[in-house]
Amino acid sequence: MTIKLVRSSASKTEMSEIVLPSHANNLGTVFGGVVMQWIDACAAMAAQRHCRRTVVTAAVDDLVFIVPIHLGDIVILSAQVNAAFKTSMEVGVRVDAEDPKTGHRRKCLEALVTFVALGDDGKPAPVPPVVPETDEERQRLQDARARRTERLARRPT
Amino acid sequence: MTIKLVRSSASKTEMSEIVLPSHANNLGTVFGGVVMQWIDACAAMAAQRHCRRTVVTAAVDDLVFIVPIHLGDIVILSAQVNAAFKTSMEVGVRVDAEDPKTGHRRKCLEALVTFVALGDDGKPAPVPPVVPETDEERQRLQDARARRTERLARRPT
Amino acid sequence: MTIKLVRSSASKTEMSEIVLPSHANNLGTVFGGVVMQWIDACAAMAAQRHCRRTVVTAAVDDLVFIVPIHLGDIVILSAQVNAAFKTSMEVGVRVDAEDPKTGHRRKCLEALVTFVALGDDGKPAPVPPVVPETDEERQRLQDARARRTERLARRPT
Amino acid sequence: MTIKLVRSSASKTEMSEIVLPSHANNLGTVFGGVVMQWIDACAAMAAQRHCRRTVVTAAVDDLVFIVPIHLGDIVILSAQVNAAFKTSMEVGVRVDAEDPKTGHRRKCLEALVTFVALGDDGKPAPVPPVVPETDEERQRLQDARARRTERLARRPT
Amino acid sequence: MTIKLVRSSASKTEMSEIVLPSHANNLGTVFGGVVMQWIDACAAMAAQRHCRRTVVTAAVDDLVFIVPIHLGDIVILSAQVNAAFKTSMEVGVRVDAEDPKTGHRRKCLEALVTFVALGDDGKPAPVPPVVPETDEERQRLQDARARRTERLARRPT
Amino acid sequence: MTIKLVRSSASKTEMSEIVLPSHANNLGTVFGGVVMQWIDACAAMAAQRHCRRTVVTAAVDDLVFIVPIHLGDIVILSAQVNAAFKTSMEVGVRVDAEDPKTGHRRKCLEALVTFVALGDDGKPAPVPPVVPETDEERQRLQDARARRTERLARRPT
Repeated sequence: MTIKLVRSSASKTEMSEIVLPSHANNLGTVFGGVVMQWIDACAAMAAQRHCRRTVVTAAVDDLVFIVPIHLGDIVILSAQVNAAFKTSMEVGVRVDAEDPKTGHRRKCLEALVTFVALGDDGKPAPVPPVVPETDEERQRLQDARARRTERLARRPT
Repeated sequence: MTIKLVRSSASKTEMSEIVLPSHANNLGTVFGGVVMQWIDACAAMAAQRHCRRTVVTAAVDDLVFIVPIHLGDIVILSAQVNAAFKTSMEVGVRVDAEDPKTGHRRKCLEALVTFVALGDDGKPAPVPPVVPETDEERQRLQDARARRTERLARRPT
Repeated sequence: MTIKLVRSSASKTEMSEIVLPSHANNLGTVFGGVVMQWIDACAAMAAQRHCRRTVVTAAVDDLVFIVPIHLGDIVILSAQVNAAFKTSMEVGVRVDAEDPKTGHRRKCLEALVTFVALGDDGKPAPVPPVVPETDEERQRLQDARARRTERLARRPT
Repeated sequence: MTIKLVRSSASKTEMSEIVLPSHANNLGTVFGGVVMQWIDACAAMAAQRHCRRTVVTAAVDDLVFIVPIHLGDIVILSAQVNAAFKTSMEVGVRVDAEDPKTGHRRKCLEALVTFVALGDDGKPAPVPPVVPETDEERQRLQDARARRTERLARRPT
Repeated sequence: MTIKLVRSSASKTEMSEIVLPSHANNLGTVFGGVVMQWIDACAAMAAQRHCRRTVVTAAVDDLVFIVPIHLGDIVILSAQVNAAFKTSMEVGVRVDAEDPKTGHRRKCLEALVTFVALGDDGKPAPVPPVVPETDEERQRLQDARARRTERLARRPT
Repeated sequence: MTIKLVRSSASKTEMSEIVLPSHANNLGTVFGGVVMQWIDACAAMAAQRHCRRTVVTAAVDDLVFIVPIHLGDIVILSAQVNAAFKTSMEVGVRVDAEDPKTGHRRKCLEALVTFVALGDDGKPAPVPPVVPETDEERQRLQDARARRTERLARRPT
């Protein structure tokens, strides 16, 4: 049996969206739920690219808005698999907003989304391990493992 | 100056949705991002009912899918403000799914969504304290305070 | 053969929506068609809860807007099966709007939606009778029967 | 003062839609609420063309599904103002479905939608009378007047 | 073997849309992509009416905005098959906008959309020839043939 | 007066989308109109990044589907400004689809979208010239200029 290893960078996914009137409240600030839907889509693509299977969202943690996103902004989402466990993956997502008139870009929020990989029978299926290649990727993998240990302690089955 | 106190139950919000084909993947399972958008909307209504101000999403934590939601299910979301701080509120959301053919109802996920209240100037504005009336509400308030202490420790400004 | 009886209150369904910019015209008033779609969804859930079958919309009557619904309002829809006939059900829907800034709640419109229950073969299938338990429910059942008699007289096949 | 008269046919509006997967339930039948939204949009355009003002939906009556509309069908909506009263108009809408594979076209439902015209101040504003030109248009005008008399009797202010 | 001939006018399709806030940018001008989606839908219905098969978009050419479309406008799309080739059809689409307050109607853009007809096996399938009946239709057919010759020259396989 | 020059690569925009059931027909092929909406959005972001102004779509040319995009595919759009004229820009967009199960990526279509830049007064406003840095960018600029000359010849005002 051979074990397929996948580089962390192989799952990198970038997504851009323009904030339209239907995405924003009457103060011109984008709805949290709209950003969450973009985050889930971007993170799911990264997870699919890592495991090449159907994936379903299992958990969202540490989703924290730093600064609001405004009507007209270009939103840039970047996702990458931080760590893979037996049948699940933790994906880190970063959301930036760019003012199209000035080009000024600011970090708006981050989130961690965990996905479970499913086989053709709809049951959890194994995913390949993540191979970090940079110091930052090694740090992310280590942090994800620590978070998982903490999560399992807080959410006993 | 008088301080307005608001009962925890005053913010109770219930929302129902039917899972349509456009909400689900090819396995007939609803997308995580779609559920997140419903959670954000339901929680935002609860937060608005507590503080009677415009609110914006500040954070999402502990969003954990227990069992998947399927195409055709009736989804029932229930939200209530757990605790109010200076200008923010933690809202607990519970999502159940009901099989319309059998009436069988199952708990699918929970999440905690934090909102910041905004004044007419778009800046954070004070919110009234939550008055718990049942033992469960008192427990929720206490837990929310503990989580906030933990969060502030983990997210230093 | 046993006949299943279903209490009128067993079909009660409550749905909440926030009025977003994409739901409203340039006067900030929600489009009638958007409210109708919410009414149909809420009423369909009530009908499904009564008969535990797939249901399709058969007719809408007496849908009357009393006061308009505005951008930013929280809309609360309540539906309940008024009466069940051989293979159809009349569902009463009431729509209220709440100003989130004041908590003031006003009745905005009512409507009657009739659904036909379908079996797995896609053909009309029997539905259980409604058992009213309160005076109001008995009145609704009686009114629904009178309306049905009048409708059949007006729409001969 | 001159009174502008508008021919009934001047308000004729035709709209076509293809039924997509997101419009239909798991039996491949279009949702009633989706058709209602199309009906409201088509009728609103006819009403606007009659009065050249902003219009808001006031009531829906006699919306009756004759045969269901299926996934893939081309839906054709036709609307025309039947009658104009002081500040309101009754619009008749007919919905047909065409099987794109055979060209077979069938009448699926009809509805009557009443709109109120609004002036720039957002208050009800006068609308021009309808001038019928064909026997069918004269019959529609007469029927609409009879229905209005009946409605006013049933919905006293 | 008989060859079915189809009159050019048999494919005529008219579609109307109201421009809503979610269709427009902050200057109140409709997004190009929204109009393109309407054009594709309207042209696809015309192509289906000509060949009575499933059709897929193959190409878009000469889509030129003449004047912008504004929030609140009634948009009228008209499509008709210009020419049919072995398994493909060129559809001409014209988009007008009507100011609902004045009734003033202006031509906003035109486009040529080419579709391929698919058989039940999902492969390209033959379509009937177009029979032009007016001088304008004869001119359109001739122009479409010239464009096709030019296109084939520019896009060699 | 100084003239701002902008590198061609400064406008590079990448967008990813997952093809959902609501984007596809009953053969599981994405609707042309949906892809066109994505193309317009991606190209508009590239044009905004080049000129730092509001932009409106002026024309679409040479949009040719090479192979169809399927339900479940990850769609990757890449846009870059090819050339800038007085107040307009030609943007090249390439659309690839990736099978998430295999990682196999194929080129699906290309298109050229022209935008006009608008000043705060809503009138056409000057845009900076494009500075190509690679041989490919120089070729694109040259081709865009040739196309513009040809277009102006074909569309005389």
